[in-house]
Parts: sequence; structure tokens; C-alpha cells
Amino acid sequence: MATLIDGHPSDKVSALDRGLAYGDGIYRTVELLNGVPRLWRWQWQRLVEDCARLSLPCPDEALLLAELAAAAQGIERAVAKITLTRGLGQRGYAMPADAVPTRIVTASPWGGYPAERYSDGVTVRRCDLTLSRQPLLAGIKHLNRLENVLARSEWADPSVHEGLLFDEDGGVVEATMSNLFALKDGVLYTPRLDRAGVTGALRAWLIDAVPALGLAMKEGSLAEVELLAADALLLTNSLIGVWPVAAYRHAGGEARWRDFELAHRLNARLAAEA
Amino acid sequence: MATLIDGHPSDKVSALDRGLAYGDGIYRTVELLNGVPRLWRWQWQRLVEDCARLSLPCPDEALLLAELAAAAQGIERAVAKITLTRGLGQRGYAMPADAVPTRIVTASPWGGYPAERYSDGVTVRRCDLTLSRQPLLAGIKHLNRLENVLARSEWADPSVHEGLLFDEDGGVVEATMSNLFALKDGVLYTPRLDRAGVTGALRAWLIDAVPALGLAMKEGSLAEVELLAADALLLTNSLIGVWPVAAYRHAGGEARWRDFELAHRLNARLAAEA
Repeated sequence: MATLIDGHPSDKVSALDRGLAYGDGIYRTVELLNGVPRLWRWQWQRLVEDCARLSLPCPDEALLLAELAAAAQGIERAVAKITLTRGLGQRGYAMPADAVPTRIVTASPWGGYPAERYSDGVTVRRCDLTLSRQPLLAGIKHLNRLENVLARSEWADPSVHEGLLFDEDGGVVEATMSNLFALKDGVLYTPRLDRAGVTGALRAWLIDAVPALGLAMKEGSLAEVELLAADALLLTNSLIGVWPVAAYRHAGGEARWRDFELAHRLNARLAAEA
Repeated sequence: MATLIDGHPSDKVSALDRGLAYGDGIYRTVELLNGVPRLWRWQWQRLVEDCARLSLPCPDEALLLAELAAAAQGIERAVAKITLTRGLGQRGYAMPADAVPTRIVTASPWGGYPAERYSDGVTVRRCDLTLSRQPLLAGIKHLNRLENVLARSEWADPSVHEGLLFDEDGGVVEATMSNLFALKDGVLYTPRLDRAGVTGALRAWLIDAVPALGLAMKEGSLAEVELLAADALLLTNSLIGVWPVAAYRHAGGEARWRDFELAHRLNARLAAEA
């Protein structure tokens, strides 16, 4: 794995970094083909928005692209991670007025997920953890991810690929590392992420792609009963692309789906995307 | 500042540490006098509990004490920070079965807070941020502290020393870096921290000390109207000790208190504590 810290080859950060002390920063996971990030338009837009939400100085786009290319040099298909923190901190939560962000770019070879996850669909479970509600952080891909860690640690069964997370009102929000879409009668529904959850770049891409597919798009609340009645469920993130859900294990049993046509269409469209 | 990482002098941690990636870890702030941590019994108990709550392997107590003493060597009065993370991670939220925690101990000279904060009391404000509710993380001094960062960044006025944080139900939970107590008719009230907030070591010490002061102790919900009617408000943490609140600025104006006798008694008792 190649790592650049503020542009310099290094795999160490200061023990006083606010990213470590408080999780005071953001990150993005990006796939690169021959050094070129996929879906960059959506990745960059999300990164800019997340920086603005946390009053974090945003890095220069050209600089970041150059660092991604440098970290992934010689790797045909790479997974890169960009982490931006509020930099060094002394004691105290207040954001330093003169904060100098730390910029961490790592890249390593990426072989993709097993083909069966796309052909046969994935199995998901309902997580016990209920996501908390914080509108000021909702949507941001920030470094405070203990809820995801706890939720993902609820199961060890390798035949379960993801876990769905619900909020206090009983609405589904997302999965532990992916966003969720539900198709019903030609309408693609996805949870609104204004109180919890992470807005993935692929989620943003998919929302933009929906009109061209002849579907309607709707963001809103989604209860479990609506998931069970859906024609198809999809999970998305920048590395996954689109996984069709084959089985959903919940308190009342297991629901199954067999029509993965929309996921296949979306993945084909995604493959054609620059 | 002296820093030990896993016992070795260093001020750098791996860029792949899960403490940085996810805030997957805990910390404690400890005052040391000639290398001996104050209130260690309460600090250690909280640390053990927090490790258990997050399934984080707990370090050896004697080892940690030796590292604290080594980091603070030659410093008469030091502030130390212990950070424990789940160690190196690869991609993915799941807790590695073979996680080797990272142990960071830093120490630096500590001059204490200005004497007026004890003699004249402090000024606090009501924060706009509403704390989210997550029983699985409540009470733990974990590294997911973006809510504290955002709340503390609501004000820059140096005459305001702390900000009170409320939950969705309108109950006060804590302040941005301290716990809150309210005295009323010989009963000391403090918010229950089972849905949000951080259980400070000094909070635990104070709860243990209350019976000897001839007061009753009650943990429960505390609304703003009850704060305004209190005979005294106190803020506590391991570095502060006990600050009496002189003024509380809220939407309806400013409430003031002048009787700081309980804070003074508690600080005297604290000074006598080993």
C-alpha cells in the first residue's frame, strides 16, 4: 500500500492529530483505473460538501488528483482512500482558527468483490443497533464511525454480506457500508439522509442516472414493511457498484428476491461511465 | 510534550490506525503530581468499563501506570492523556478478531485553570446543538467527538467558559468538556448518562463523595427550568476539579448564582484526596 501524507510518502500521522483525538475529519473511498478516479465528479462534490459542513478547509482538486495518481502509480485497478482531518490539535474541542488540515491518500490493488454477489445477489440482515439522529452530521462521511463498527460487529457469518440500519422511528437509513434503494412499481425509493447516514458518491450518481432509466426517483422514509413489499432492493457504494439483494433476514423470517435486472442494468451503465 | 506509543518514545501513529479511521477507541485525561495520577481509582475503573463496552482489550494497569510515570518524568504537575485504539485496520468496519490495540500516552506540564474560575465562578451558555441518543455509546469516553467539536465551536467569546448540551427531550446531559451537577434543597442532581454524554472520572468521584458531605445524590433527567431553580450549579472534570457556575446564558436571559460554598468544599476535599 502506498501512502502520502500531505503529499509526502509516509505511513505515519501525528499522535496529536484531531482526526485521531476526535474523529474530526472526513474520508472518501475511491476506485481508480490506471490512476484515474472513477465517478470523480460525484466523489469531489461530496467531499466539497462534507468539508463545508464541518468548516474544514478543502484541498485543491488538482493537487488531490495528482496525489491519487501518484499513490496508485503502477496499479491498474486500485482502491484509494482520501482522509482529511482538521490537523494538529492541542487540548480542547474548539476548532483552531489556524487549522492546517492533514491530507492522507492511500492506494492499494483492488480485485473487486466476488462475481456471485452480482449474479446471485447478496444476503443482508437487520442490525440490532438503532442509528442515532444528528442532523448536523447526517450525510457527512466523517470519521466518527463507531456506530458502523458496532453494527458490523453484530454478525460474523460470512454468508451475510451486509446489515441494514434503522432509526428510532423504524425507518431504514442505510446499510453498514452502503446505501440502500428499493424499487416498487417503477419508482426507486431511497432513505432521506438528513438525520443519519452517509451520502455515498454512488448514491449520488445513481440518483442522477435514474431518469435515463425510465424510472422515477423518490427520497423519503422507508419502513421495513415497504422493504418487504419491494420489487427489488439494491445496495450501493463506490467499490460495490450495485449489489442486488437476494435475501433479507429480519425478526419475522427471510424475504427473498430473484429479479436482479435493474442491478445488472445499473452496473452495465456504471461500467460505461468514465 | 512526551509521547509514548505502545511504550516507545514516538509521536507518530500509523495512518491505518482504526482510531483515526473510525474513532474506534477511547481516551482519558489525567492529572499527575510527580508522576502519580490523581483519582486513579476512578480513572482506571472508567477505562476498564469503557474497554469492556467497546470490546477493546484492556491494557495492564501496572504497565499503564509505569508509562504515565515515564511520560511525566521530571514534570511536577502534568496533564496526561491516555488513548487506546483498536489498532491497525484494513478496509472494513468489523472488529478484527486479532486486534492489537494501540496505546498512546502523552504528558505535558499543566499549570491549572485561572484561580478566578473557582473564586468567582464561570459563565456558561446553552448550546444550540442537540446531542444525539445512542445508548450503546452513552457514557463512554470514546474517540467519536464531533458533537463536542461542533458544540464548542458555537462560541468564541472568551468570557464564556462552557456550553451546556441538551437532548431531544429537553433534558440537560452535560457540558462540552465537563459534567454538570445541580444542587437543590440539599439534594445534588446530575443527569443520567445512559443515552448520551461522557461519564467523567471526577463525576464518579463526586458521586462517591456526596454521602460524606451530608447531601443526597440523585441521577435522573434535569430540565432547564430545574437548572434555573437550582441553588447552585457545578461543572466537573479531572482537570477542572469543580467549577461553580456564576452565570448561565440561555434563550430567556441570564441566570446568576453567588453561593459557591459547595464547590469550595468539594475542591478542598479533592485537594486532600490522594
